[in-house]
Amino acid sequence: MARGRSRRRAAEVNALGEFDLIARIRARALQAGAGRPDVVLGIGDDAAVLQVPADCLLVVATDTLNDGVHFPIDTAPADLGWKALAVNLSDLAAMGAQPAWCTLSLSLHEADADWVDAFLDGFLSIAQAHGVALVGGDTTRGPLSVCVTVHGFADFGHALRRSGALVDDDLWVSGTLGDAAAALAQFRAGGATEPALRQRLDRPDPRVATGRALSRIAHACIDVSDGLLADVGHLCAASAVGAHIDIDALPASATLRAMFTDETRRVLQAAGGDDYELCFSASPSRREVIAAIAAETGVPLTRIGRVVAGAGVETFGRSGESWQPPRRGFDHFTG
Amino acid sequence: MARGRSRRRAAEVNALGEFDLIARIRARALQAGAGRPDVVLGIGDDAAVLQVPADCLLVVATDTLNDGVHFPIDTAPADLGWKALAVNLSDLAAMGAQPAWCTLSLSLHEADADWVDAFLDGFLSIAQAHGVALVGGDTTRGPLSVCVTVHGFADFGHALRRSGALVDDDLWVSGTLGDAAAALAQFRAGGATEPALRQRLDRPDPRVATGRALSRIAHACIDVSDGLLADVGHLCAASAVGAHIDIDALPASATLRAMFTDETRRVLQAAGGDDYELCFSASPSRREVIAAIAAETGVPLTRIGRVVAGAGVETFGRSGESWQPPRRGFDHFTG
Repeated sequence: MARGRSRRRAAEVNALGEFDLIARIRARALQAGAGRPDVVLGIGDDAAVLQVPADCLLVVATDTLNDGVHFPIDTAPADLGWKALAVNLSDLAAMGAQPAWCTLSLSLHEADADWVDAFLDGFLSIAQAHGVALVGGDTTRGPLSVCVTVHGFADFGHALRRSGALVDDDLWVSGTLGDAAAALAQFRAGGATEPALRQRLDRPDPRVATGRALSRIAHACIDVSDGLLADVGHLCAASAVGAHIDIDALPASATLRAMFTDETRRVLQAAGGDDYELCFSASPSRREVIAAIAAETGVPLTRIGRVVAGAGVETFGRSGESWQPPRRGFDHFTG
Repeated sequence: MARGRSRRRAAEVNALGEFDLIARIRARALQAGAGRPDVVLGIGDDAAVLQVPADCLLVVATDTLNDGVHFPIDTAPADLGWKALAVNLSDLAAMGAQPAWCTLSLSLHEADADWVDAFLDGFLSIAQAHGVALVGGDTTRGPLSVCVTVHGFADFGHALRRSGALVDDDLWVSGTLGDAAAALAQFRAGGATEPALRQRLDRPDPRVATGRALSRIAHACIDVSDGLLADVGHLCAASAVGAHIDIDALPASATLRAMFTDETRRVLQAAGGDDYELCFSASPSRREVIAAIAAETGVPLTRIGRVVAGAGVETFGRSGESWQPPRRGFDHFTG
């Protein structure tokens, strides 16, 4: 039985050697990445050679996606390619940085040309959308795993950090929260996943333009990947402040509102993960500017609470009652 | 049985949550990386913020090590930490670049504090030896895998490439070849591994000072990771030249000479992998300068052949007879 499966797979798989695989990735990366003169030397040597603008700081983030941990096992390869770069671009967005280059380290059980092509379709389409050149990486045999490192530029003195929040700042969040967590919950329950929700899980849209626009406005910023309350907690800890969140102010998609009870929706929005929205603090004097940024970028920005003296994140309902989710976020090693 | 094992493991393992793990890595990285003022913002935010010197190009390499593919399963965690950074520094060395920063993406079955501490012992000791700051990364649950991205600086116009070899250049190699492949062969045969050989497999010494010194001397350079003949083949293909190699000129350690027959040694030296030596081409007029670099760095540099017109790598024995290894190198997906 196992041998039969193995024979069938061998016939189905359009197998490549490692050097063919690298050549294939290189050819597609060159095609997609043409037009960045700051790439002095891209894929194909021992390392890439790159030129950072003289008046900019370099911003670097790295994130790995592992099969079954960071994405459902039925995730299409093109979606995985998209997401692997998207989650990294989201980190650059949270710094207010302009993306430039990336490297890709791909571990695969087998070098299946069709799988790799589909993966690259997703990866390179979001790379092109953000003007990011794929400049290096490696391919190895192993359990499916994708490690991406992204590089971007920030203006001197204007990289956003988690640590700048001030007491009495407004707290804001971009887009809507909870859709990705809802899709993951549906997948885990074994039922069908609603396509609109699943799209948010598989194809997160990193808020790069929003982050760039906020880089001279926000006091502190973080991307929401572990779950809103967990990430607000990180921002507060780094800034040595506390936060009050209005649970009923959290922005939700129409699909999320239609498909879940209020209480389930609250939990998905407050404690789900994988949103890849930006959460930031800014002075109340900036509300009009922030509304203008939302209008300009087409990404809604919603005021969800405020920064307070002290420590910790407290959450309140509409009538001022305290609210607690059953859990606060996602820890890879404990839950 | 499975449950019993699981209980025992839970008692043995000094388990950490993900945020504890990141805090632990951060604390040790800060301690080890102090003294690089070009790290504007290190571990602990959404991304690192770094300053590249205005007169330098940025050189970036990334490499992943997977359990059982890139290192024997009995590899000590400290050795794995060392090697994960060493193989990346070797790529920078091959570009003639000066290392500066790295990121670390660590996938672990479980967040065992003792394992992570031992891993960091090795990783940070080679980082400190080369003045490299650990500035970011992530930790995730999954099969053991280590993805490292390194950043270094090259002088404008002086990054070494694979593509600059000229007909009639000498071909050189640093250090000695074959020890790591010999240790791996011993491990695979199930016997004891000779400690001196195993040291070369587990703790490769990236030739950073040699690469720096060669950056204005060599015409082309590559690091020997896939096996000498395979890597000379890459250099020749990139340079559109061929090469003649004198198999008996390849430098070997005394241990390798003592423990293997001449023919086995030749195969290990020519077609083994994991050497992390530099192979480079240079004009014959540079022989004295190159001898001086060897004396200065303490790393032997040996002339092993020459660049010829045409394509492909041919190997000859002492009396001019053609010599072929049974296989040329390592391909992750076919070999």
